[in-house]
Amino acid sequence: MDDDSLTAVLRRAADRQRGFNDRFAAYFDSLTDAAGGALETPAFGRFTARALDLVRELSLRGGKRLRVVLLYEAAALVTDEPVTGLDEAAISIELLHTHGLIHDDIIDDTPVRRGGPSTYYAYLREFPDRPDTALALAVLAGDLAAFLSVRVLLGSGLPPALALAMAAVHADVGATTITGQILDLERDFHPEPSTDLLNAVTEYKSTRYSVLAPLRLGLLAAGADPSEHDGELRRYATALGIANQIHDDWLDLFGDAETLGKSPGSDIRSGRRSYAVRALLAAADKSERELLDAALGDPDGDEETLDRVRDIARAHGIDRSLRAEAERHAREAAALAATWRGRWRPDAVALFTLLPTWTVARDR
Amino acid sequence: MDDDSLTAVLRRAADRQRGFNDRFAAYFDSLTDAAGGALETPAFGRFTARALDLVRELSLRGGKRLRVVLLYEAAALVTDEPVTGLDEAAISIELLHTHGLIHDDIIDDTPVRRGGPSTYYAYLREFPDRPDTALALAVLAGDLAAFLSVRVLLGSGLPPALALAMAAVHADVGATTITGQILDLERDFHPEPSTDLLNAVTEYKSTRYSVLAPLRLGLLAAGADPSEHDGELRRYATALGIANQIHDDWLDLFGDAETLGKSPGSDIRSGRRSYAVRALLAAADKSERELLDAALGDPDGDEETLDRVRDIARAHGIDRSLRAEAERHAREAAALAATWRGRWRPDAVALFTLLPTWTVARDR
Repeated sequence: MDDDSLTAVLRRAADRQRGFNDRFAAYFDSLTDAAGGALETPAFGRFTARALDLVRELSLRGGKRLRVVLLYEAAALVTDEPVTGLDEAAISIELLHTHGLIHDDIIDDTPVRRGGPSTYYAYLREFPDRPDTALALAVLAGDLAAFLSVRVLLGSGLPPALALAMAAVHADVGATTITGQILDLERDFHPEPSTDLLNAVTEYKSTRYSVLAPLRLGLLAAGADPSEHDGELRRYATALGIANQIHDDWLDLFGDAETLGKSPGSDIRSGRRSYAVRALLAAADKSERELLDAALGDPDGDEETLDRVRDIARAHGIDRSLRAEAERHAREAAALAATWRGRWRPDAVALFTLLPTWTVARDR
Repeated sequence: MDDDSLTAVLRRAADRQRGFNDRFAAYFDSLTDAAGGALETPAFGRFTARALDLVRELSLRGGKRLRVVLLYEAAALVTDEPVTGLDEAAISIELLHTHGLIHDDIIDDTPVRRGGPSTYYAYLREFPDRPDTALALAVLAGDLAAFLSVRVLLGSGLPPALALAMAAVHADVGATTITGQILDLERDFHPEPSTDLLNAVTEYKSTRYSVLAPLRLGLLAAGADPSEHDGELRRYATALGIANQIHDDWLDLFGDAETLGKSPGSDIRSGRRSYAVRALLAAADKSERELLDAALGDPDGDEETLDRVRDIARAHGIDRSLRAEAERHAREAAALAATWRGRWRPDAVALFTLLPTWTVARDR
């Protein structure tokens, strides 16, 4: 791999992120701006404004915005002219993500998200004596993000055919993602889920809305018909999605707190059957298995326990084998993107070719 | 009021309900039908299928389908020809309602809904040792209903301009309704909320999606432009919505269990500041107030307590004054609909004129 190109890709991705963050903040301003686009909200009370604030705060606290990069670059495959509808699509897909985070953090009882309090825990702090109210408001804040997410495509004065096509992608992927979240819960009823099951969870819970939908939306906005390339877009998305998830699961076990923005080992403490946990369970001998069974799902597991789990993983080469597996999927995605040369614009194709490698190298 | 016309209206409404219930069932069949329109769901697992079943069961258990009647009759204001898009709009708005019920029943910890278990309690029964899983699945089942609700407008092959206009109404009212649910939670932090606050809760939490949106969607489907009649549609919706809510609150205090499909007194036991509770608090003297304060929010309140609360209400004429207030708003809506004679088709106008009266007389 060419280091200069990777640097260029990262710079380009960082530019996309920065530009987007400004537009995302302006969108939240517009929701309360009488000048138009404003959400009609009750004149009474403070709770609605607070819910909008929390949706805004979590949304703007960022994350790596891989979805946004994929979306703008998918349009750049077709044209380097400014493209109508990209900003709305990016806001829509990030709001869909915010919706998922807020409800996920209720489901997993997660206190910290993106280096700040989860929405649920922000409400728990505001209503220390009324946990039911905190739960209720967190559910509703997540719902609000979901409806805003589709509303931004339909209420922004986009060309009708584009708005309709993008909203159809959104509604479909929204429902699909929920089925993935439901499958994710079911996964943890399988003591040792198969790789196929983990791949299905990854595909439905994250790949569809985080990779495939941005690709489709970007192409749509640029005037291309994504259905003409459906098979290869899906293959690219699936490979990149799995690579990304395996790397996330690797980071959760082997990463450090500062880079992660949260304590590592959350999958061990929650007992979540991640790719790393699956590999551990498949490799462990009897005495290691006892230690693992005690550690998995123990919310009070300490650093020492986590170190022992890491030792077991390293003893079986899981550290390396997971990285190799993530890299294999990343190479598959990269090879697929390389076939787009000649058909699509070279700078964007280069980005899609390099992005998978960056994805599995980040924060390491 | 002419009894024959009211009978005719009720028969017509019942026909709308029956026809719709068949189409709603067929829609749920189509979600798993490979022939098209099917939702792409993971091949693995049982949980997704179960979530879809629970959404279906609750949706088909019915309710009075006032939204559906309003929607079809709004189209009938313009034409008596079959209208494309009405079925999809009706399914969409009922799914939005299902979404609200599922999340509301989590928020209020409601065991029974429409004569069967709430989705949350159905899951609690299936996972007696894992209340967190039950909660998670109920949140996700509600989310699924929300995304399906907009998806049915966008993925059904409707004429593009119509699909777009209807989806825009949907996304806007979806977000607005969530702000109403948030205001509803805030209401119960006010010991004695004003009527204006209660009216705002009614407007945002239910009227917008249960009355105004069906009117707009029905007119849109029939080829009319609802924005030309925005002011009067809003006034009709607001008056009918308040009449309907006051009557619901009256029924919760004075209705009987068999007609209601649930035990009366739920507002007293939950401490919800309904129109009836507000009137009680405003009228009670010191000793009555003590009894009320003890009863409000006591989940174990018995039939005897409820009888005493009813006695207080009757002693202050609240039984009659609430009914009079509901009827006043119903008459306002009816008078407004009467001005549509000459502009719109007489049989549908007659229905909109009679419906408010029926609304505040039902189940009494």
